[in-house]
Amino acid sequence: MNSNNPLIGRDIVSISDLSGAEIRAVLDQARHFEQRLKDAPMIPLLNGRILATVFYEPSTRTRLSFESAMHRLGGAVISVAEAKTSSSAAKGESIYDSGRMLESYADVIVQRHPAVGSARALAEAAGVPVINAGDGTGEHPTQALLDLYTIEREKGTLDGLTVVMMGDLKHGRTVHSLAKALAHWKTKLILCAPRALAMPGDLIAYLRNQGLIVIETENMSAALAQADVVYVTRIQQERFETVEEYMRYKGVYVLTEQAVRAAKPGVVIMHPLPRVDEISTDVDALPNAAYFRQARYGVFVRMALLAMVLGAV
Amino acid sequence: MNSNNPLIGRDIVSISDLSGAEIRAVLDQARHFEQRLKDAPMIPLLNGRILATVFYEPSTRTRLSFESAMHRLGGAVISVAEAKTSSSAAKGESIYDSGRMLESYADVIVQRHPAVGSARALAEAAGVPVINAGDGTGEHPTQALLDLYTIEREKGTLDGLTVVMMGDLKHGRTVHSLAKALAHWKTKLILCAPRALAMPGDLIAYLRNQGLIVIETENMSAALAQADVVYVTRIQQERFETVEEYMRYKGVYVLTEQAVRAAKPGVVIMHPLPRVDEISTDVDALPNAAYFRQARYGVFVRMALLAMVLGAV
Amino acid sequence: MNSNNPLIGRDIVSISDLSGAEIRAVLDQARHFEQRLKDAPMIPLLNGRILATVFYEPSTRTRLSFESAMHRLGGAVISVAEAKTSSSAAKGESIYDSGRMLESYADVIVQRHPAVGSARALAEAAGVPVINAGDGTGEHPTQALLDLYTIEREKGTLDGLTVVMMGDLKHGRTVHSLAKALAHWKTKLILCAPRALAMPGDLIAYLRNQGLIVIETENMSAALAQADVVYVTRIQQERFETVEEYMRYKGVYVLTEQAVRAAKPGVVIMHPLPRVDEISTDVDALPNAAYFRQARYGVFVRMALLAMVLGAV
Repeated sequence: MNSNNPLIGRDIVSISDLSGAEIRAVLDQARHFEQRLKDAPMIPLLNGRILATVFYEPSTRTRLSFESAMHRLGGAVISVAEAKTSSSAAKGESIYDSGRMLESYADVIVQRHPAVGSARALAEAAGVPVINAGDGTGEHPTQALLDLYTIEREKGTLDGLTVVMMGDLKHGRTVHSLAKALAHWKTKLILCAPRALAMPGDLIAYLRNQGLIVIETENMSAALAQADVVYVTRIQQERFETVEEYMRYKGVYVLTEQAVRAAKPGVVIMHPLPRVDEISTDVDALPNAAYFRQARYGVFVRMALLAMVLGAV
Repeated sequence: MNSNNPLIGRDIVSISDLSGAEIRAVLDQARHFEQRLKDAPMIPLLNGRILATVFYEPSTRTRLSFESAMHRLGGAVISVAEAKTSSSAAKGESIYDSGRMLESYADVIVQRHPAVGSARALAEAAGVPVINAGDGTGEHPTQALLDLYTIEREKGTLDGLTVVMMGDLKHGRTVHSLAKALAHWKTKLILCAPRALAMPGDLIAYLRNQGLIVIETENMSAALAQADVVYVTRIQQERFETVEEYMRYKGVYVLTEQAVRAAKPGVVIMHPLPRVDEISTDVDALPNAAYFRQARYGVFVRMALLAMVLGAV
Repeated sequence: MNSNNPLIGRDIVSISDLSGAEIRAVLDQARHFEQRLKDAPMIPLLNGRILATVFYEPSTRTRLSFESAMHRLGGAVISVAEAKTSSSAAKGESIYDSGRMLESYADVIVQRHPAVGSARALAEAAGVPVINAGDGTGEHPTQALLDLYTIEREKGTLDGLTVVMMGDLKHGRTVHSLAKALAHWKTKLILCAPRALAMPGDLIAYLRNQGLIVIETENMSAALAQADVVYVTRIQQERFETVEEYMRYKGVYVLTEQAVRAAKPGVVIMHPLPRVDEISTDVDALPNAAYFRQARYGVFVRMALLAMVLGAV
C-alpha cells in the first residue's frame, strides 16, 4: 500500500464520487499495469483475494472484463452470471441481505442491476468495496474511466479536446458518465443526436456549470469536422414511440469509412460496444478505430480499480 | 495429513453419516481456519485441486459459499450453476454417468439436486468425494454443520442449550438435519410451528430416542422466553392447502425487535437465509442477530470439509 | 518452449488442419501430462494465462473438460456457459466483434457454436488461438484427438486396427472427425448404421481416397466379430422423418454385455457420451468399457492442446 492510493476500501458507485485527482490516480495505475503486462501475463497483487461478479442483467463484456482483470492480478472469481433467475432474488431476497451475504464470500463485489440506485444500496449494506457495473439508466463509472483512459491513451492528453458524442444521448448511461468525467478537463463537447434522443437538459446545464463548452446539433458531418474524438452509441428501436420515428433516424447516424476519412486525420473513433450497425465494419481496419483497443484498455482500468479498492497498491 | 482427520476420501451425504467425534473434528478444523484467516486472505492447502459445483436447482448462497471456501484454500472451481437446462441432463444422462464424468474433471464434487437420494446415487458412482448440498426434502448436512458451528461460536458451547426452532418444521430440511445433529449434545428442543407444519412425528420420536428433550408448542412468546438459540425458518405459502390457512399463520411467526428484547439477553437468532419477512429488518442491528455471521461461518465449515475429505489436513 | 511444438499460436478448427506429425505431437504431449499428473495434482505451465470458454449451446462435458484441463495447468478460466441468452449475441453482436472482444480478455478461446463455420470465423477475427469445441454438424477436432488417444492408450497402437463405428453415422460430427483422423493410420473402418443414417457418400469416398479400407453394413453382430474397437453413437429420434422409421431402428443398435462377450476378448468400447440407452449399463463393469476412461483421457489431450497453442511446451 502507498499513500498515493486514495481509494482503499472505497465503493465505486458513481463517477461523481471521484475527484479529478482520484480519477488521475486510477488512470496512472492503469497505465502502470498496462506497461507491466508487456513482460508478464499476470501481476500477482491479489493472490488469495476473491471477487464476486453479480449480474442481474446480462453483460458478458463487462463481466468478462472484470473477471479477466481479477485473474490478471492473481485473484479468484465467484460469479452469478444470471442473477435474476438463478439467485435468491427469485425468493425475494433484498439487496441489503444480498450484500450481507456477499461480504462473507468475497473481498470485493461487482454488480450490474437494472434498477437505478441498486449499486448504492448494495454498497451501504456490504462491508467490502462495491463497484457499480451499471445500474439501470443510472451510472456505469468504470465505463467512464476506461473511456477517459482510451482518450488519453490515443490522443496523449485529456486537455483541450473536442469530443463528439453521437447516437442516443438520452438513455445512454455511458455518455452521461463520460460527460460528467470530462468536466474535470477543458473539453468541448458536441452532442449530435435526434431531438427525441437528446441529452437531458438538466445534465447539459450541469456540464456547462462545471465549465464544459457544450454544443448541440443534429448535423453529423458538421460535428465530425471538428472532432478529435467521436463517441458513437447505438440507437435502439424500442427507445422511439413509433416505428415511423425510428425509421426516420435509422441509418442517419451511421459512421462510415468515408465519413471518417473526411474528418481530422487523427480522429479517434470510440464505441462502448456491442456495436450493431452504427459503425460500418469497413471502419474497423482504419487506425482511427479505437473501439476494440478500448475493450482491452478496460481490463487495465478495472485492474487498477480492483487493486486500489483492495489496498494492494 | 494427520491421524486426526477421520474424513479422508469420505462422502458427506447425510449428517447421520457422521459420528459425534467426526462432527467435533469438523468444527475444530473450521475454527482453526477461521483463526488463520485473520492473518492471511488464503490458506493454500488445496493448490492444484479442483472442485466441481453442480446445481440442478438454484442456490446461489450455497454455491458461492462452497466456491469461496475452495478459493480460500487455493483450489480451483468448475461449475454447472444451472444444471437442469445447461447440462447433459437435458439429453437424459443419468446421475451415474454424470458421476463417472465428473470424477474425471474434479477432485471433489458438490451437488444440489431436487430429488431425495440423488446425493447418495452420485456418491456411489463417483470415485472422488461427494458433498451433498441439498437433495430435495432430504438432507443438507453442511448446513447442519455450519449451524452447529454458529451455535458453539456464539454461545461458547453446544451442551445444555435450549434451542427453539420456529416456522415450517415439516418441510425444512435444514431444521431436520440440525435437530439430528443436536442429538449428539444435551439439548432441549422447543418446536414452535403451525400444526399443519409441525415436525414429522417419526423424526420427533427418533430425536427423543436419541436422548433429546423435545417440546412442541404453537405459542411463540412462551417458547422465546426459554430460548438460548432461536432458529427461524420461512413459511412458504405453497406449503399450505388453502390460502385461508396460509393467511391464518402469515405474520404469526414473525420475529420482531420487541420479541427479541423480551427474550433472554444473550439469545442468538439464526436463520438459514434467504430471509423474507419472518425476521423484521429492525432485528438486524441487534447483537443477537447471528444470521449474517452464520453465512460467514459457513465458509470456514466448508473449508474444513473440503480440506478434510481431500486429505489436506 | 521447444522446437518440437508445431502448434504455437495455432488455431484448432478442423482435424484436417493437423498433419499426422502434429497429431502425433499432441498425443505424445498428452501422454507426458498423464504421467506427470500421477505425482502432482497440477502442472503449473499456464500460471497467469486465461482461457475463455464460450458456449452458444450447452455441452457441460466438453466445457468442464477444457476448464479442468486449464486448471490442471495452473491457468484461470472466464466463461460464458450459455452464450445464446446471456451474451451480447442477443443484441446482435457478430462473431467478428465477439472475437475482437474476447482477445482482450483471454489468451486462448474455446467456442461451441451451432453454426458450421463459426469456429473458423472466430479464429479469423481473434488475435489469440481459437479451439473449436464443436460447430454445428461441422467439426469437433478435440473429440477426434481424444478418441485417437483413447484407442492408442487402450490398444497400444493406432496401426492395423479394425474400428467399427455404429449408430448415427450421418449426423455425428464425432465419427466424421475421427474417421478423417484415422486416415493417418492403416485402419479398417466398418460402418454399421441404418441406411437412413449412413455416413455421407462423399466422406466415405474421401476416406477411401486417403487409403482407409471402408466397409458398410447393417449387420451389427458381423461387424462386432471383427472389431478391435467399437465406437458407439446415439440414434436420436429427431433425426428420422417418421416415428415408424425411428421405431424400426430403436433398440437394434444397442450394445449389450452379451454382445461384448461375443466379440474379440480385448475389444475396446468407446462412446463420446452422454450415453442414453445405446450401451446397456451392464457393459459398464466390463474391462472393455473404455468410455468413462475416454472422458478422463480428454483432459490430458486438452491440456496438451492448451499448453501447445500457448507455447508453454
